[in-house]
Amino acid sequence: MIRSSSQIRVRYAETDTMGVAYHGNYLTWFEVARVELFDALGAPYTGFEKEGYFLPVLSVEARYLLPARFDDRLVVTVMMLQKPRARIQLDYIVECGGRKLATGNTSHGFMDLAGKALRPPDRFIDLIERAWCDVDVVV
Amino acid sequence: MIRSSSQIRVRYAETDTMGVAYHGNYLTWFEVARVELFDALGAPYTGFEKEGYFLPVLSVEARYLLPARFDDRLVVTVMMLQKPRARIQLDYIVECGGRKLATGNTSHGFMDLAGKALRPPDRFIDLIERAWCDVDVVV
Amino acid sequence: MIRSSSQIRVRYAETDTMGVAYHGNYLTWFEVARVELFDALGAPYTGFEKEGYFLPVLSVEARYLLPARFDDRLVVTVMMLQKPRARIQLDYIVECGGRKLATGNTSHGFMDLAGKALRPPDRFIDLIERAWCDVDVVV
Amino acid sequence: MIRSSSQIRVRYAETDTMGVAYHGNYLTWFEVARVELFDALGAPYTGFEKEGYFLPVLSVEARYLLPARFDDRLVVTVMMLQKPRARIQLDYIVECGGRKLATGNTSHGFMDLAGKALRPPDRFIDLIERAWCDVDVVV
Repeated sequence: MIRSSSQIRVRYAETDTMGVAYHGNYLTWFEVARVELFDALGAPYTGFEKEGYFLPVLSVEARYLLPARFDDRLVVTVMMLQKPRARIQLDYIVECGGRKLATGNTSHGFMDLAGKALRPPDRFIDLIERAWCDVDVVV
Repeated sequence: MIRSSSQIRVRYAETDTMGVAYHGNYLTWFEVARVELFDALGAPYTGFEKEGYFLPVLSVEARYLLPARFDDRLVVTVMMLQKPRARIQLDYIVECGGRKLATGNTSHGFMDLAGKALRPPDRFIDLIERAWCDVDVVV
Repeated sequence: MIRSSSQIRVRYAETDTMGVAYHGNYLTWFEVARVELFDALGAPYTGFEKEGYFLPVLSVEARYLLPARFDDRLVVTVMMLQKPRARIQLDYIVECGGRKLATGNTSHGFMDLAGKALRPPDRFIDLIERAWCDVDVVV
Repeated sequence: MIRSSSQIRVRYAETDTMGVAYHGNYLTWFEVARVELFDALGAPYTGFEKEGYFLPVLSVEARYLLPARFDDRLVVTVMMLQKPRARIQLDYIVECGGRKLATGNTSHGFMDLAGKALRPPDRFIDLIERAWCDVDVVV
């Protein structure tokens, strides 16, 4: 598996009238963690787009266990539990002070800008092979 | 079942560098459809909060089939396929010009502001019973 | 002058912990009103981009007088008080139930995708000339 | 004056079809910088709300000079150039790689949750007095 954790501080703009972070914003936090995972792999997302690869979200799931509030310091952990084939599957855990606030997952496929499916870049697959281990990657 | 459809026009603010609507915004569109479903039932969401009931999202799933773009006129249909018990389950379809762009679902539970689970208000259950039919509610 | 008014219903996603609409969202509502003004002129914004014209925001000002809350039905009026030269100047008023909640303005310049300044399209200038009057355009 | 700088990395969710950060998001970045300024002063914003003080935005201005793009690392500097009286005035500069992307300002007033104007907390005024200097506060 490959794993990376990101720090998120909840913005006021991300809260709602219930006094908690709006549930849609967790998807943006998943994005932040995903981008930092690709950085850690040595395959930053901006590099994909420069080479004509886009990586849209094909599906998302999230379960909300406990609310996050303004100014909470969150740790968002993203895990790749399976090596990517046509699709990339990622799992997420959002924690605050050791408590699990939410879990989720996303799936992605490489595409060109016109939306045509592409195979993952060879270099990306290589980097995953190198980073892959039974012990977690420390990022 | 109970069903309602809402009109959404994609805002520039909702798009991203890929030239399509950012996937997180579909959750906000689900919210818009959900709010209009409650209106159609005669149980507007603002009424819940005035009586101390909050209805947070407990889980969400979305599948993205085709992209939405700036200025697209979307129809977001929300369906309650089962009468609510402790939880409310809602399903969503996002369409544009007859093509299905995305599907999704959310689950919700009534809570007070402190996060304590509450039974659905009796009046809400009554309104659902009255609106329920095998044929769709036209809203 | 040219004027157009748009209906906005405040989304839960747009509110914050203070129980009011987050101030940044007014800029998105200005966008909605601006897009509908261009529609009313017969120069929809999507047409600009198809022809290679982009119309970024160069500056924005907003004054917040009274809060908007979830589910409020807002009227956002956008006014072009001066015919555009190099820049387009637009003024905005956000109202709810006859009360003025906010005012603002934006300025814009036509550019190509690389950010090079362009003269406004002739057709756009023509449409403004035709629509211009001392009496308001009813949209 | 009092000054603080914050690091922002542009999120994909914050970009738009033009391939740049949507202009409304700068207001959220101003918020991030403002929150960190209050931290640096020893007066974190969460402390205000616990004591019943809210600090809504009364006005905002922004000028956009150069675009920010996905993944850009921004430095957002916030400056208090005048000691607050009834209102707090803050100025902002957004930079990337030494280039100035945008400038702006916000004004704020302390209020209770009902929107009634309050004098700034004495402790807040004291902390500003202590931090104030002709040389910049290093944060």
